[in-house]
Amino acid sequence: MSAEIICVGTELLLGDILNSNAYFLAQQLASLGIPHYYQTVVGDNPERLKQVIEIALQRSQILIFTGGLGPTPDDLTTEAIADFFGVPLLENPEIIEDIARKYAQRGRQMTPSNRKQALMPNGASILPNPGGTAPGIIWQPRPGLTILTFPGVPSEMQGMWQETAVPYLKSQGWGKEIIKSRMLRFWGIAESALAEKVAPFLNLPNPTVAPYAEFGEVRLRISARAESDSQALGLIEPVAQQLQQIAGLDYYGSDTDTLASVVGQLLQAEGETLSVAESCTGGGLGQMITSIAGSSSYFLGGVISYDNSVKISLLGVNPEDLSQFGAVSDVVATAMAVGVRSRLSTTWGLSITGIAGPGGGTDAKPVGLVYIGLAGPNNIGSSFKYQLGQTQERDSIRYASACNALDLLRRKLLTR
Amino acid sequence: MSAEIICVGTELLLGDILNSNAYFLAQQLASLGIPHYYQTVVGDNPERLKQVIEIALQRSQILIFTGGLGPTPDDLTTEAIADFFGVPLLENPEIIEDIARKYAQRGRQMTPSNRKQALMPNGASILPNPGGTAPGIIWQPRPGLTILTFPGVPSEMQGMWQETAVPYLKSQGWGKEIIKSRMLRFWGIAESALAEKVAPFLNLPNPTVAPYAEFGEVRLRISARAESDSQALGLIEPVAQQLQQIAGLDYYGSDTDTLASVVGQLLQAEGETLSVAESCTGGGLGQMITSIAGSSSYFLGGVISYDNSVKISLLGVNPEDLSQFGAVSDVVATAMAVGVRSRLSTTWGLSITGIAGPGGGTDAKPVGLVYIGLAGPNNIGSSFKYQLGQTQERDSIRYASACNALDLLRRKLLTR
Repeated sequence: MSAEIICVGTELLLGDILNSNAYFLAQQLASLGIPHYYQTVVGDNPERLKQVIEIALQRSQILIFTGGLGPTPDDLTTEAIADFFGVPLLENPEIIEDIARKYAQRGRQMTPSNRKQALMPNGASILPNPGGTAPGIIWQPRPGLTILTFPGVPSEMQGMWQETAVPYLKSQGWGKEIIKSRMLRFWGIAESALAEKVAPFLNLPNPTVAPYAEFGEVRLRISARAESDSQALGLIEPVAQQLQQIAGLDYYGSDTDTLASVVGQLLQAEGETLSVAESCTGGGLGQMITSIAGSSSYFLGGVISYDNSVKISLLGVNPEDLSQFGAVSDVVATAMAVGVRSRLSTTWGLSITGIAGPGGGTDAKPVGLVYIGLAGPNNIGSSFKYQLGQTQERDSIRYASACNALDLLRRKLLTR
Repeated sequence: MSAEIICVGTELLLGDILNSNAYFLAQQLASLGIPHYYQTVVGDNPERLKQVIEIALQRSQILIFTGGLGPTPDDLTTEAIADFFGVPLLENPEIIEDIARKYAQRGRQMTPSNRKQALMPNGASILPNPGGTAPGIIWQPRPGLTILTFPGVPSEMQGMWQETAVPYLKSQGWGKEIIKSRMLRFWGIAESALAEKVAPFLNLPNPTVAPYAEFGEVRLRISARAESDSQALGLIEPVAQQLQQIAGLDYYGSDTDTLASVVGQLLQAEGETLSVAESCTGGGLGQMITSIAGSSSYFLGGVISYDNSVKISLLGVNPEDLSQFGAVSDVVATAMAVGVRSRLSTTWGLSITGIAGPGGGTDAKPVGLVYIGLAGPNNIGSSFKYQLGQTQERDSIRYASACNALDLLRRKLLTR
């Protein structure tokens, strides 16, 4: 028993729109525990659509269509489906009435092309569309095969899904089993290295554990199949704890946690405050920290010392150090952190200076070289050197620099 | 001759991520004029992937795969493809070397599981991945069938597509009739208002003009179908000029232009400099400005005055003004701009203070209320009031605030 999502629309093939309908339906099917192994996108072409149906019903028992229910000639999903199964289309008076009423409400006249939206395969039921004029259908053209159609407009499709499709699927005995997931988040370890550390877990049947990596962050997704939330959590919890233990400090949080939110919680717990001094990130670290609502309780602010003159005037960096060691150096990173901490009178001062590229790199100081400075309660500053990938984009070097700064502070707060 | 996009990844079936890769590739194929009638999504399952290949090669001649090239056991796209065509996988020493070098750059050890990423079907060529460790392949397993594989990480996939895949496809004679597009970018006008202003253009056959709106920015995409770039440009240019003229100052740039890049060009042209003072954006404005390589020639830095104490100590805002008018006020916004400009001795000082929410709003000062201050050569500061949507997310209010600040300066630089 599995479902297949079939999105109909030439605009998807032309890249005019993101396929957010497939994204929404995939999440919904997962949370209902309805297996779903394939998604297909096809244009507004009846022949190709029928070929797609032919393929889909050989491998799936629930076919979920989005798109092609509109009033215009290129909206042909319903016709193509009826034609494929050799069933005639009948005009449904209920729908005509509903469309006429909706147009009246908007002070408009129903147009002849709207009658097209009232055509349904003989034997299909209406999947009502409160939000728009185009209803969908719920149809079992043959035993063991269920067809659901939705318009392409995401808001209408989602409303119809929640209000009618979900209750229907449950009434049919589907969606009994649920899938619950937890995302564990890691920083400072490569996907391959983490995958090796937790190798045995990657073959678990239930819950399953799958690694992902993006923008320097590595994630492990724990997914449990069960009959209740509590049962699923009971499967997830022990595995999550073991994985966290194995990863140690490289694990920083789960689900909606971010490095910024975790650092914020640690500071708040101690009633401590933070300030930042940024060169190559130009404000990106501060923005990351203040993306957390309530960050004003521990984040006072900072200095964007993009130009050396600002490092001197607002952070008190020694001009000789700048000329002797350069702006991207251990000495300057430390001085920036100490400077911003004392000027803003915070518990912690965090600084970033580096070469984000694409220009400005040398053999001695290549693109991706970043120093992160940290000054703490004892007012002793220290700095840490990072060499990020020289081939990385300017943006990803800047992003990774800010994340590494937060991660550095996080580890310090956890291990002092 | 048509292409098919096959996205491999259980995370797509679980609804963990939007399929932005299919979106990008669809746009690219359209712009190359390569027909594309089907997209398929399948999970990390070799048997199903092979079934998908079997179906695809009956209807498409170019198969474009994304995802499943990583180092972990569930990354199996390459193996499945080779296995389907009964061709052995060979370890490619070039790739091993490349991966080892990239790891060394990041001060990391290459792990055994990375060797997996160096396996290629016998006879396939490397599709280099400058941004990551996982390369793709370009392979003609049989006459008239071309296979391209990419990793799932969008930034890597897009780089590989632009640098290697596009030149390869053109060298093979595909993409003869080309579609060329230009994206015109607007700020400070609603999509509906702009659409009405340019209504007649929205029905043009060639070039076509289509409106888009995202994150407060409105765009008009002009797409021309022609046999050569110059012919397409000849169709686009006059339409672009008329649209820009109609939109006036609301038009700010095209294609890869951003508000930050446009402001940067205007400052550079005059040899002027800029500094920022940020409260609710917490560094987001500085980050936006410094996202432009070379911004150091006009951007000196700024102050993240998230806490009022910093507004006083580093920007010289009058404490009485803060208590009398509040941090989110015309007076304070102006003082912040004047303060940062004089302390950093820049031509312009730009400031933002507002209520990003979700908390902190009052009837008098609701969430979304933002003041943007500007101080210029005459050292006279002024401030402008914005009421952004109260229902908007914290992030989008912060983003729109930074964009509005840049747009304000842009209009000032163009009209002084």
